[in-house]
Amino acid sequence: MPVLEDELSRMFSALADPTRRAMLGRLAASDATVNELAEPFALTQQAISRHVKVLEKAGLISRTHAAQSRPCHLEPERLDIAAAWISEQRQMWAERYDRLDQHLERLQTRTQGRGTQRGTR
Amino acid sequence: MPVLEDELSRMFSALADPTRRAMLGRLAASDATVNELAEPFALTQQAISRHVKVLEKAGLISRTHAAQSRPCHLEPERLDIAAAWISEQRQMWAERYDRLDQHLERLQTRTQGRGTQRGTR
Repeated sequence: MPVLEDELSRMFSALADPTRRAMLGRLAASDATVNELAEPFALTQQAISRHVKVLEKAGLISRTHAAQSRPCHLEPERLDIAAAWISEQRQMWAERYDRLDQHLERLQTRTQGRGTQRGTR
Repeated sequence: MPVLEDELSRMFSALADPTRRAMLGRLAASDATVNELAEPFALTQQAISRHVKVLEKAGLISRTHAAQSRPCHLEPERLDIAAAWISEQRQMWAERYDRLDQHLERLQTRTQGRGTQRGTR
């Protein structure tokens, strides 16, 4: 699944708020209506609805159209997209140090090679 | 290392921009000065400096004070904090389905138990 640059930005932006992260944590445990999501927070229903919309636009949650209460449902595979981006960076970082190791190894082999040549002369 | 809620918000917020993510990708390959970081982008030096500051405040990069060019250096273990938060959510999600599986298994055992009782009558 190709990920658009702005999709990734929308997702990280949605995660950049403690209330929204707490809401996702709540939804990881079970689906919940907006009313249920609002319970632990000292926030207006309107503010909670705004947060729900941000999470929905980022694809991190979906809402059932069938039921009247329209419970929110976590879309955990979207989190994998963010995790994949992070692990790609870590991979690049690891390769950087692998290259450095290889370079040092080549240098060492060359130095040792010279030492051997000198020894056999 | 305990992670403060707003630290996590600052980090996700720093990652919520394609230019900043590209800069981190560049720094994963090797350290770079602000001038070098600016090269691939059609952005003013000022705009790049602002991005560098956001990444620095999020702890995602550090800058050497010794050298005059002050090269930027990626702090990859900070990305692990974001990755850890994501994997925590995935874990909660997995546990939710484990609980559901266990519940279904118990129901099935009970039903089978009844079936056997009926059969032996």
